[in-house]
Amino acid sequence: MTRKTGDEARACIVDAALTEFAAFGVAGARIDRIAAASGASKERLYAYFGSKELLFHEVMRTASQNITSAVHLEGADLLGYVGRLVDYFDEHPEWVRMSTWNRLEAADEELPVEDVRFELNDSRLDAIVEAQKSGHVDARWQPGDLLMILMSIALASAAASPATMFVANARDPLTPDDRRLRRREAALEATRRLITPGLSTS
Amino acid sequence: MTRKTGDEARACIVDAALTEFAAFGVAGARIDRIAAASGASKERLYAYFGSKELLFHEVMRTASQNITSAVHLEGADLLGYVGRLVDYFDEHPEWVRMSTWNRLEAADEELPVEDVRFELNDSRLDAIVEAQKSGHVDARWQPGDLLMILMSIALASAAASPATMFVANARDPLTPDDRRLRRREAALEATRRLITPGLSTS
Repeated sequence: MTRKTGDEARACIVDAALTEFAAFGVAGARIDRIAAASGASKERLYAYFGSKELLFHEVMRTASQNITSAVHLEGADLLGYVGRLVDYFDEHPEWVRMSTWNRLEAADEELPVEDVRFELNDSRLDAIVEAQKSGHVDARWQPGDLLMILMSIALASAAASPATMFVANARDPLTPDDRRLRRREAALEATRRLITPGLSTS
Repeated sequence: MTRKTGDEARACIVDAALTEFAAFGVAGARIDRIAAASGASKERLYAYFGSKELLFHEVMRTASQNITSAVHLEGADLLGYVGRLVDYFDEHPEWVRMSTWNRLEAADEELPVEDVRFELNDSRLDAIVEAQKSGHVDARWQPGDLLMILMSIALASAAASPATMFVANARDPLTPDDRRLRRREAALEATRRLITPGLSTS
């Protein structure tokens, strides 16, 4: 067995921490479980990251970078972007859970100004503004409103309440795999109806 | 000062517990804070409710009944329903927070079969099916898919990520009050585009 380099050890800790934070949030997460799962000592972990809260910020930063590099927003192609987000949320429930914990736990906390999540959302908003200027997306929407609605549509299945999901599944004749495909297509159809210029109903 | 009846004391505890669970979730909630805030002793609280988890179920039941009686779904009027949900989520951030904690904390837990949330979602789904049959809502959608998308649109502002909300607000010229009205109207316009028969883009 070869010894891990410092970078490898840090990456292992961040990985284990993501699993722990996704399961329990920051308040419920336990440093000793993260240490055990990553094969590092608690002392090493504190030496690298300082505190549970700072480790959490590092995990959020890494996870935000992962989603940014996995899910590209190409020019004005908001439709393709929503489809890729649906897939990402589907394949990475731990990301959805971790962001959701963060929304609850950090409600009154200010985000670090250099946070990668600002860049991510800024680039999404820029894309909407550009797509509206170029006529690919209905200019009727205030860009921020459309961003929030599209993000919520991309999350509709992944963030549905347990009772809504249970009732919807109970009456659904399809297999889970086919359901997932149909729900993905529903998110795309919803997106098309919102962004297509000229469909406005009022 | 008159002594509270048993029912009044229970109602005070449930009220204080809602505030506590909305702030900290079940794992983070503290029975002694709930007791202090409601003016009951911890012993009384355990005698009434048995455990923190059972108290939480009682709070969820009460909160679900509150939303059901405050936000009516009248026949096929899904548009009005979404508008009333937007208002309710706006005025009751504690309900949004508590449901969100519950989604995270009870991910693997089965809901009690008689849970009021099943009835609530069953009635929403029935309304969609009926509205599709009567031609008021586009029959193209699988009813459960449309339910999940409409619920997510109603929650788009209340459940936006802090970074998305920050970036959207930073570029928004309107005052918070005017923003809220415009976002409400955006949710309604999005709903109209989804439910209006014949707008399908594919």
